[in-house]
Amino acid sequence: MKIGTVIGAVWATRKAECLGGQTFLVVDTGRDDLVAADRVGAGVGDRVLLATGTVASRYCMDAPIDAAVVAILDGKQDS
Amino acid sequence: MKIGTVIGAVWATRKAECLGGQTFLVVDTGRDDLVAADRVGAGVGDRVLLATGTVASRYCMDAPIDAAVVAILDGKQDS
Amino acid sequence: MKIGTVIGAVWATRKAECLGGQTFLVVDTGRDDLVAADRVGAGVGDRVLLATGTVASRYCMDAPIDAAVVAILDGKQDS
Amino acid sequence: MKIGTVIGAVWATRKAECLGGQTFLVVDTGRDDLVAADRVGAGVGDRVLLATGTVASRYCMDAPIDAAVVAILDGKQDS
Amino acid sequence: MKIGTVIGAVWATRKAECLGGQTFLVVDTGRDDLVAADRVGAGVGDRVLLATGTVASRYCMDAPIDAAVVAILDGKQDS
Repeated sequence: MKIGTVIGAVWATRKAECLGGQTFLVVDTGRDDLVAADRVGAGVGDRVLLATGTVASRYCMDAPIDAAVVAILDGKQDS
Repeated sequence: MKIGTVIGAVWATRKAECLGGQTFLVVDTGRDDLVAADRVGAGVGDRVLLATGTVASRYCMDAPIDAAVVAILDGKQDS
Repeated sequence: MKIGTVIGAVWATRKAECLGGQTFLVVDTGRDDLVAADRVGAGVGDRVLLATGTVASRYCMDAPIDAAVVAILDGKQDS
Repeated sequence: MKIGTVIGAVWATRKAECLGGQTFLVVDTGRDDLVAADRVGAGVGDRVLLATGTVASRYCMDAPIDAAVVAILDGKQDS
Repeated sequence: MKIGTVIGAVWATRKAECLGGQTFLVVDTGRDDLVAADRVGAGVGDRVLLATGTVASRYCMDAPIDAAVVAILDGKQDS
């Protein structure tokens, strides 16, 4: 998984029907900004763990989503 | 998901049979131009959300497609 | 999907059994050269659309293939 | 698979329920730092092999995880 | 698929149980070194074709593997 920081959110009126009710956060991963579905309750400034690919879709009831916030980090212990 | 801007479209007469009837948009993601199937009705200049991988194929009736426009963005709230 | 240009082909005598009968083209995607199975009949110089990942395998009868030519482009309309 | 070196770990109190009980290591792959679930017992300084994508999720009981440590390397024989 | 050159091998005593009996080669793809399971019998110096992702796992009896050597190249015909 990638670690990133939540920097905002996006909204869409016109979208795939099955995306209704999902919250989409913009996450800065250091390299790219990704948009991820959030079901953990993350907010701007939170450091989060992202799961990507089919795994994210399965976690979001098989919606056409390829990135999801799966955890909000408490801390990181470096060597 | 990636955010991108629709910059055009592509057409193909010779293609996998199961691709018939799909619309393919060229989307500038800032890093690469990707071609994505569109089922939301996006047009040139729209800022869109792309889902990639198997997820996109499943959204497009299991066609051999690895990117799809799943939403047209209203706005983006940065921190 | 990625757009690329066919620049050649590769052959392999020693390979996974289930790859027999597949044609493999080398496609220049601007960033990397990828090898893709071709079932559309593309040739050197053709601009093609590539599907990658599990999607490509499914399109090629579940062979251990992660890229496939799914269309030969007629033209591209830029904004 | 990618080779990387374990450089730390991360913790999360707020997370997807199905992530409970998983250990998450930070792995330096030379290019990016990735977070991977560990079920092999790796520690800081170990050189490990990472499997990514749906494969990693399946290895971790279908949890929303896209990277897993699948081996701790003994040695590497270069040409 | 990616083309690469086999430059060595890796060994692991501590690993996922289901990886027993697999051979892991280090393959230089020009950009990154990847570790791939080999079931074709490639050796150092061979130019090989790599399949990545879930496709590779399926080819290796669903082991937690995300890259596999699927062919040893005879030659490459450029345009």
